[in-house]
Amino acid sequence: MSILIKKVRLHNDVVDVLIEGTRFAAIGTDVDAHAATHIDGTGLALLPSFHNAHTHAAMTLLRGYADDMPLHVWLSEHIWPFEAKLTEDDVYWGSKLACLEMIKSGTTFFADMYWHWRGTARAVEEMGLRAALSAAFFDFNDPDRAEPMKQQVMDLHAASAACSDRIQFMLGPHAIYTVSGESLRWLAEYARRHGLLIHMHLSETTKEVDDCLREHGVRPVEYLHSLGLLGPDLILAHAVWMTDAEMALLAQHGVRVVHCPSSNMKLASGQFQYAQMHRHGIAVGLGTDGCCSNNSLDMFGEMKMASLLAKVTAMDSTVLPAAETLGMASRAGAQMYGLDSGSIATGMYADCILVTLDHVQMTPLHSLTSHAVYSATGACVDTTICNGRVLMRHGVVEGEQEIINQARAAVTRRTAAIQDKTSCS
Amino acid sequence: MSILIKKVRLHNDVVDVLIEGTRFAAIGTDVDAHAATHIDGTGLALLPSFHNAHTHAAMTLLRGYADDMPLHVWLSEHIWPFEAKLTEDDVYWGSKLACLEMIKSGTTFFADMYWHWRGTARAVEEMGLRAALSAAFFDFNDPDRAEPMKQQVMDLHAASAACSDRIQFMLGPHAIYTVSGESLRWLAEYARRHGLLIHMHLSETTKEVDDCLREHGVRPVEYLHSLGLLGPDLILAHAVWMTDAEMALLAQHGVRVVHCPSSNMKLASGQFQYAQMHRHGIAVGLGTDGCCSNNSLDMFGEMKMASLLAKVTAMDSTVLPAAETLGMASRAGAQMYGLDSGSIATGMYADCILVTLDHVQMTPLHSLTSHAVYSATGACVDTTICNGRVLMRHGVVEGEQEIINQARAAVTRRTAAIQDKTSCS
Repeated sequence: MSILIKKVRLHNDVVDVLIEGTRFAAIGTDVDAHAATHIDGTGLALLPSFHNAHTHAAMTLLRGYADDMPLHVWLSEHIWPFEAKLTEDDVYWGSKLACLEMIKSGTTFFADMYWHWRGTARAVEEMGLRAALSAAFFDFNDPDRAEPMKQQVMDLHAASAACSDRIQFMLGPHAIYTVSGESLRWLAEYARRHGLLIHMHLSETTKEVDDCLREHGVRPVEYLHSLGLLGPDLILAHAVWMTDAEMALLAQHGVRVVHCPSSNMKLASGQFQYAQMHRHGIAVGLGTDGCCSNNSLDMFGEMKMASLLAKVTAMDSTVLPAAETLGMASRAGAQMYGLDSGSIATGMYADCILVTLDHVQMTPLHSLTSHAVYSATGACVDTTICNGRVLMRHGVVEGEQEIINQARAAVTRRTAAIQDKTSCS
Repeated sequence: MSILIKKVRLHNDVVDVLIEGTRFAAIGTDVDAHAATHIDGTGLALLPSFHNAHTHAAMTLLRGYADDMPLHVWLSEHIWPFEAKLTEDDVYWGSKLACLEMIKSGTTFFADMYWHWRGTARAVEEMGLRAALSAAFFDFNDPDRAEPMKQQVMDLHAASAACSDRIQFMLGPHAIYTVSGESLRWLAEYARRHGLLIHMHLSETTKEVDDCLREHGVRPVEYLHSLGLLGPDLILAHAVWMTDAEMALLAQHGVRVVHCPSSNMKLASGQFQYAQMHRHGIAVGLGTDGCCSNNSLDMFGEMKMASLLAKVTAMDSTVLPAAETLGMASRAGAQMYGLDSGSIATGMYADCILVTLDHVQMTPLHSLTSHAVYSATGACVDTTICNGRVLMRHGVVEGEQEIINQARAAVTRRTAAIQDKTSCS
């Protein structure tokens, strides 16, 4: 399969772009080739597609289900009871809805942690995206719970061998307050034996840090260090409450961090210290988190949130400028998950988007990068391409109404099940 | 003129809505009438349109022109030199571009402060929106500059009598550091003699507060109080750096405040203390500020920014919940500018929007209010109605490509003029 995009804007030039198979084959001022698909790039600009470095895709089913509550009420009285009812089929439709939202807003890769791994994997296969999917691991310090979770890791790891190479299996210990030190050690050893990434939440709230200090006598990064987890295969989501010493440890071990600004603000978790992280040279990707704490998967909105929050947190308007933010949302996310994507260059995976320049939010065109970060939304995306395949053209994804209908039906079934249970108890 | 909207979702009901002339005439489960325009509301929800309580509309021309800079470099080396070159015709096209962006994202009213008042007024008349337009007043403490500015106020006030009743003239002293105390007193007296609102920036940065303390020995709100400005006809934009005593003074005098979260974050001005303002019972509207410090006029994005910033600033996820945020962006803005709009009720101005429910960001529909604030963008707006007139239907505004083209041409002319001047000097 091949795609030839003629006369598209790339940075400040107008170029032709040839995609052969899954990768960019040629980029130049006059590329001619016989291609299966021709795209007229007039009035469009080419950008790398986004890499959503931390989410819980199927939580689209809970979008708007519970907001504006104290964290423990939100989790224990609303989110967990709903999630406990979800089936693999529900997760499949919730993940398809998430994939649809991502394709429509220019994202071609996401890193996930959730229940019913197979449901999400099936959705990703069908929708044509890339993903690093972790199976959520919780044992609540109970060895009886740890054993079946370990078995699940091994089973899913084996099952993932049958997936296409767009899907990467990774380990997903939920957090230090939900997974025992023994299980964390086991996961680290398993990851290193099999060359897998470890994706976990860390230092999201002050409560988590305080509890760690009380229980283990050290701060969360130091605790992970004592368990042997720190390394370039560890990716930490949130990392809001960090001392300079902890950042230095992360930098020293090449640990990567995912910033989730909307979620940290909506749950009042705290303000990520981007300027300090950047000074320490820590690689930072961008994540939307799940649709219950954001409630959108549009990486355009997330870029703006990240850049603006970083500036006001540092009280310095030069922090996290537009180009750096765009890199965080594309290249940085790709690199931390080991992908040849996130930038437009010959030999890289053909993961990219075409944005409409005749859009009011793109006018006037003083700077495409500025507009992408500060003005545009997902609605500016005309075409989304992943792995050399067109997933959306002129804003339309095949079968989108069916996905919306099926996701609604799944929610109706689960809501009914919860109400049944409530009325019986 | 009349419009009948059949079977549209309003809150949790499905209703018919009749608009006669400029106002809502009937809302009920089975309204029948001969109407000039019929709209099928199936799959759509009715919301009040947004009221952007502080902006500089024509700054759309500078969208993305200069970002990520220290404030003084940004203003003195980039924004002011560009603005100095703008003609009334440029401001007209810049304002039309702003009106287009607002209509497309569901805003029907804006409060403005800018140069070339007549250019903006002409754009508003043609585009069909409502606006409160102030002539920016600067005298830099120079009596020789104050006199022509006062004359301009009187001239524009007289000229505004010829405008439609969609346009409200108001006074626009820029700030306490750019307008003398004597001029501020004169403006307050003029406003009260003629029943006009006063719209100004206040306490945007710590520098402004420090300078006020040094020059006048009091904080900004106390300084305005000493000049006799505090009253329910005073609307203050930003109000970031406020003591409890200042908030009490504002509450006591019924002064209204406009929160501009994106601008305050992007310029690293500071974090608005919404929770405290709310406790003091101060009416707070929402503004995007101009396109140079935001860089979007989409009030959906601004609502999310406001709510999330309020939560993380107060470290309390229950602060500024979705319904209160939607009210801030619609009803509160309408009320502070004395308009019978901002909510859907018989007798109110027919200023409203229809949003598409078959949109991925609206799925599943646990809560329309939550989705409006936390998930949707302007792209979810199907129809915009102002003053009983349809300004957009199915996402299309008449003549939008021409506005985009003309705004681009204005920018090309001004950029050339600036480069000419630079190369001659």
